Amino acid sequence: MNDRILRAARRQSTDTTPIWIMRQAGRYLPEYREIRGKVSFLELCKTPDLAAEVTVQPVRRLGVDAAIIFSDILIPVEPMGMTLELGDHGPHLPQPIRTAADVAKLHGFDPETCCGFLAEAIRRTRAALNDSVPVIGFSGAPFTLAAYMVEGGGSKNFMTIKRLVFEQPKVAHALFETITSALIPYLKMQVAAGAKLVQIFDSWGGELSPRDLREFSLPYLQRIVSELKATGVPVIFFGTGMSGALPVLKEIGADVIGCDWRIEIDRAREVLGPDVAVQGNLDPLALFLPREALAERAEEIVRRAGPVGHIFNLGHGILPPTDPDAARALVDAVHAAGTRLRASRS
Amino acid sequence: MNDRILRAARRQSTDTTPIWIMRQAGRYLPEYREIRGKVSFLELCKTPDLAAEVTVQPVRRLGVDAAIIFSDILIPVEPMGMTLELGDHGPHLPQPIRTAADVAKLHGFDPETCCGFLAEAIRRTRAALNDSVPVIGFSGAPFTLAAYMVEGGGSKNFMTIKRLVFEQPKVAHALFETITSALIPYLKMQVAAGAKLVQIFDSWGGELSPRDLREFSLPYLQRIVSELKATGVPVIFFGTGMSGALPVLKEIGADVIGCDWRIEIDRAREVLGPDVAVQGNLDPLALFLPREALAERAEEIVRRAGPVGHIFNLGHGILPPTDPDAARALVDAVHAAGTRLRASRS
Repeated sequence: MNDRILRAARRQSTDTTPIWIMRQAGRYLPEYREIRGKVSFLELCKTPDLAAEVTVQPVRRLGVDAAIIFSDILIPVEPMGMTLELGDHGPHLPQPIRTAADVAKLHGFDPETCCGFLAEAIRRTRAALNDSVPVIGFSGAPFTLAAYMVEGGGSKNFMTIKRLVFEQPKVAHALFETITSALIPYLKMQVAAGAKLVQIFDSWGGELSPRDLREFSLPYLQRIVSELKATGVPVIFFGTGMSGALPVLKEIGADVIGCDWRIEIDRAREVLGPDVAVQGNLDPLALFLPREALAERAEEIVRRAGPVGHIFNLGHGILPPTDPDAARALVDAVHAAGTRLRASRS
Repeated sequence: MNDRILRAARRQSTDTTPIWIMRQAGRYLPEYREIRGKVSFLELCKTPDLAAEVTVQPVRRLGVDAAIIFSDILIPVEPMGMTLELGDHGPHLPQPIRTAADVAKLHGFDPETCCGFLAEAIRRTRAALNDSVPVIGFSGAPFTLAAYMVEGGGSKNFMTIKRLVFEQPKVAHALFETITSALIPYLKMQVAAGAKLVQIFDSWGGELSPRDLREFSLPYLQRIVSELKATGVPVIFFGTGMSGALPVLKEIGADVIGCDWRIEIDRAREVLGPDVAVQGNLDPLALFLPREALAERAEEIVRRAGPVGHIFNLGHGILPPTDPDAARALVDAVHAAGTRLRASRS
């Protein structure tokens, strides 16, 4: 197995800088759009053969160092008792959580019974890849999932979830607690099925101040991370808009902290200290640059981050209009820059 | 005149911590909604008597230490040659800028001829307030204005403006240059009319990486700030999502850097160094906390920021559902905490 990403996550030496791309299985790939033309997004998530197929597509085409299982952070909300609609205009939860009674109606679930399709998709991906690269499992962070569950979908200023946090902190804590307890076995199932690395996506984590992160997110993230690390797999925590909160993120205990592009990666590293690896952090829009400028930027990030404990990625998901050849050029540029960096230091 | 804010902007001592609130003249106030019920948003901006009246309202009701003139960052785009519609669903520019030819059609304007209503509103505000507190003038930052002009309104991931930056950097620079040249006399007019302080709003500044900020924003911001400072008024730069870019923001040369709530204000101060004042940075949603918890948070920020060179503000605009009494309670809490802080140190 190409274990560069696993070694980088553990801050062990690697022959070059490893790379994967958030949303690498997705709409920018024609082979993905072809499959997606035949089934809905949720059906695709729940059909192991198809989910495995789209998971493998970017590994074949781009040469990335890991496959992230095709799924959605909102998958666990259905077995917790909510109705979920995933349309082209983003997720919609028609019965949002707003009260203590709503939270009380949510429940844990047996992941194999309710989400066995995900475990099966991981196993089929591994078989299709012949374990040539690791499979990454994932979930949303409790705050981000709660935001969707309370807002009922995406949001501009997250007023509803934040009013819940500020006006009814006990209800908010009960909700985060319920989500956390459901996510731990859900993630462990992915590890048991063969995920070699796990990423927690906190897409809306940047909506909370460092103080509120500490109170309303940190304890839950710490619990998830410590339970996952006990299984032996490294854990990546990724949040957007959280550059100012790095001192709090450091306390999560994750092996890797993923950064968006709003900070220089060497500055992030400086704040995080030597005991944590970093992931990131090219602006997804940089894939629209001419190839030479793209390669130059990739090289800059590789050099700033250094040769040890860096997993290259975009600072957010790859966008649908991106040219797949640009993504391939990025992967090649990162590998070449990582090799050059190591040669220049030896 | 209550000159606390001017003194704080210059890092001179003050009897307590001064405060104003972004969007303090706005929809959360019933007296604002009453006037707004009779005229459109743009009419309100362009009618000096009414604009002055809504500018003064929060000074009366909240006891804030400054009045910010009621206007909109998009006001300059009309005299530059664009059509602007400001509806309840945000701004809409039906003929967005996408090409070099579009940029070439934009033009500078004489601010007194085209935006004399704004100068007149400032003069009437000063008269209504009897110069009891300073009036703050403002504009958008070139990147933020360009984002609206190119996207044609708000945006989720700013793909169009950022593709322009990455795919046609010369066109982007020409656009930023045109906007900058228009903003300088526009801001100087506000100072000539009696604005004692100027704020540059970079609402979307956080969409650019530090590297791109340096190339596509910094030179324009530096020019605006140095031209404005030459008139003798202090300049505040405020951006959202820019906690990771503070080392770049420091180079703008502004007297004050405003922060959103995504960083502890003492950490921001540490990065910015002793030669710049800070503004911020309470989460606007904290106004939904019980009064005691709100006061405790206000006090924490006052203490973290310290007694010199701090202007209290929210980390973003006050939200329409906010209770005006909570805003009043915040102002009182900040003044009380600022007095206590100074007493404890003397």
